[in-house]
Amino acid sequence: MCSINHMEPIPQAPTGATGPEAASPATAIQGATSQQATAPATNSPETAVPETAVRETTGAAATRPAAARPAAARPGGRTARTRERVLDAVASLLLEGGFDALTVDAVAARSGVHRTTVYRRWRDTGALLAASFDAAREQPWQPPDTGSLLGDLTEINRQIVAALTEEPSITRALITASFRSPAAADALRGFWSDRFTTAAVVVERAAPGADARTVLIASCAPIFYELALMRSPATDDLAERYARVGAAAVT
Amino acid sequence: MCSINHMEPIPQAPTGATGPEAASPATAIQGATSQQATAPATNSPETAVPETAVRETTGAAATRPAAARPAAARPGGRTARTRERVLDAVASLLLEGGFDALTVDAVAARSGVHRTTVYRRWRDTGALLAASFDAAREQPWQPPDTGSLLGDLTEINRQIVAALTEEPSITRALITASFRSPAAADALRGFWSDRFTTAAVVVERAAPGADARTVLIASCAPIFYELALMRSPATDDLAERYARVGAAAVT
Repeated sequence: MCSINHMEPIPQAPTGATGPEAASPATAIQGATSQQATAPATNSPETAVPETAVRETTGAAATRPAAARPAAARPGGRTARTRERVLDAVASLLLEGGFDALTVDAVAARSGVHRTTVYRRWRDTGALLAASFDAAREQPWQPPDTGSLLGDLTEINRQIVAALTEEPSITRALITASFRSPAAADALRGFWSDRFTTAAVVVERAAPGADARTVLIASCAPIFYELALMRSPATDDLAERYARVGAAAVT
Repeated sequence: MCSINHMEPIPQAPTGATGPEAASPATAIQGATSQQATAPATNSPETAVPETAVRETTGAAATRPAAARPAAARPGGRTARTRERVLDAVASLLLEGGFDALTVDAVAARSGVHRTTVYRRWRDTGALLAASFDAAREQPWQPPDTGSLLGDLTEINRQIVAALTEEPSITRALITASFRSPAAADALRGFWSDRFTTAAVVVERAAPGADARTVLIASCAPIFYELALMRSPATDDLAERYARVGAAAVT
């Protein structure tokens, strides 16, 4: 949801390709910022490799191109492919060296896209970060439907916990970047606002008339507070504990 | 509470002093990181000028030395005065230029304390930030006692809202710094953990046996989420809305 997450299936296992042309670092941000509960049917479950698995396999995590992706899986032609390569480079640079590593020149070098193209389309680091969030917003995300509000809120919280505690965490990297770039901060807010709007259904079907946003924030904000702001270690019961708080907030 | 706040009374209005010797920038972090509900009796209410008022008067906010303070108001002798000057410099540099402006050399120059002294005692930026949080923890803070749990939680949240929305906000500056410095992140966690321990009384007296920390985080975390992480604008009802969530979490 709520999660800038890692569950996008990608069509094939790593090939060890390292050249920028072959690179599709698992569209790290795009996958990282959305649950692919409604993943395209073209990826059969048998062949789908979760991005995290790729990261584990490649060792150096998302800092390395992960897998060649069939050109057919990239809709939109050349412009879309350029964007995907650039955003993959943004994600891998962020994970590798944080905000300081994220320059337009570094993105051009990493992506293999000409720097004048990068400058023309994205101008600066803030615009690149904003584009990453926009790409994440475009990814479909399906709120959970476990049969109870508590179950749904717990599942959403679990997704957030997973996104904030995976190593490396693009979610944490993007939150950190939002403290350096006003454009990234705006884009972060937009992304989560969008996700909360989509997630409102879990509250509305359980408690029509309740203030869905308040309930969702009551449930999710403590997770962000503990893991992103305070950097406390995650405990097993964290997701459910504050889901209960959220569920209690509807009454 | 919960607040890295601004309500420390200081004894006199700005004098326009600009030299480092005369400077006591309202002990910006120390004042900023604690409510002075139990302010020293030596500062009579008549002469006390809230730091925010000083900031408004001086225009350039806490980036300028605010007021000369009688030497008698500084307990602890030369070492303590050096520390205070250094931490004042840390606060004003942070507010002025953010984390990037915070170097040991800049702190030495701003504070008028010799750089070898600063290096010897604090070593690096992380240690300076940690010392700032430690100083804040030493400041007395009294949890509110309004007669009801909802009232107390609302008051705590109002203090957090005030700390996160004042301009400039040392609280926001320190949170931002915690994303650049692991030492600052540790110190931030320690500071808030301490405050939550102190604040537990508001839950315990209203609902003995309740999980005080969960209730406090349920109440406070959404404020941090909205104002510090998402940088949403503060709404009038924000403090009370999530205080209600916290109060509902005891049942």
